[in-house]
Amino acid sequence: MSPMTTLLHFEDFTLGRSFAGGPYSVTRDEILEFAREFDPQPHHLDEEAAKHSLLGGLAASGWHTCAMTMRMFADALIPLAAARGGIGSPEGRWMKPVRPGDVLRLEAEVIETKATSKPFGFVTFACKVFNQREQVALIAMTPIIATRSGA
Amino acid sequence: MSPMTTLLHFEDFTLGRSFAGGPYSVTRDEILEFAREFDPQPHHLDEEAAKHSLLGGLAASGWHTCAMTMRMFADALIPLAAARGGIGSPEGRWMKPVRPGDVLRLEAEVIETKATSKPFGFVTFACKVFNQREQVALIAMTPIIATRSGA
Repeated sequence: MSPMTTLLHFEDFTLGRSFAGGPYSVTRDEILEFAREFDPQPHHLDEEAAKHSLLGGLAASGWHTCAMTMRMFADALIPLAAARGGIGSPEGRWMKPVRPGDVLRLEAEVIETKATSKPFGFVTFACKVFNQREQVALIAMTPIIATRSGA
Repeated sequence: MSPMTTLLHFEDFTLGRSFAGGPYSVTRDEILEFAREFDPQPHHLDEEAAKHSLLGGLAASGWHTCAMTMRMFADALIPLAAARGGIGSPEGRWMKPVRPGDVLRLEAEVIETKATSKPFGFVTFACKVFNQREQVALIAMTPIIATRSGA
C-alpha cells in the first residue's frame, strides 16, 4: 500500500471530526527570544515589568502562541493531510496568558467545509489550545486548503 | 517636559488616525528559520516544493508575516502609546506571498474605539502591510488596550 493512500483529502474532513495536537512545552528562553524578535513589549520581555502589567507576570506574545499553535497543527495534521496551506486567520483570541513552563495541547475540530469547482476545497478548523490546567489559552479559526480526493 | 506627557492615550486614538511602520526587510534565512520552528510545511521550507505549490515559490508562513507585522506595529506605536498589550486578532488575511527580499511597510488606521468604565479602553487598528510593489500582502485587525488620559 502506498503511503499516499493514507492521506486525508477534502472529503475526509467531515463536520465535527476532531484532531489532537501537542504537547508543546513552553520555555522562558523561547518566550524571550520570540519577543525580542517580533513583539518587544515590556510584559513579554521583563519579569518585573510583566508583574505590573495586565498579564500579572511574564507571558508569551499572543503571536507567539499563534505560532506554537501552528506548530502543533502542522505536526498533527500536515503529515496526514493532502493540504496545500492556509489562507489566513479569521479569528484568534488570547484567552489566558501562556507562561514559562506551560505545556500546551491542541484540539482542532472541523466546523466548516466549502467545496469549490477547483481540485481543492476549504476546511475550517476551530482550534482550542489548552494549558496543563485545562484552561483554554487560545481560540483560533484556521482555514486550510485541502485537495479533493482523486484530484 | 517629562517624556510621559508625549505618550498617546486612549483619547488620542481618534477614528481615522493613521500610523506608519516599517520598513521590514525579509530574508530567506529568516523565512526558513521561522518555518523550521513553527510552520514546517514544504512550501515554507523548500524552494523546489514551493515552486509546485499554490504559492508558486518560497514564501513566508502567514504566521511569520503576522509576527513581522507585530514587530512593525510595536516599533511604530509602543514607544508612543500608553498601551497595555493586545487581546487577539479578530481577522488576518494573507493576501500575497511574502518572499525573500521583500521590503514591507505597515499602515495602521484606527477604525474602532471602545471606552470602558475601567482606566483603559480598546482601540482597533486596521493594519495593512504593503510590499515594495505596493501590493497588499496582509490585512489584519489589531485591537489594543490603551490607558485613558489621566488614569
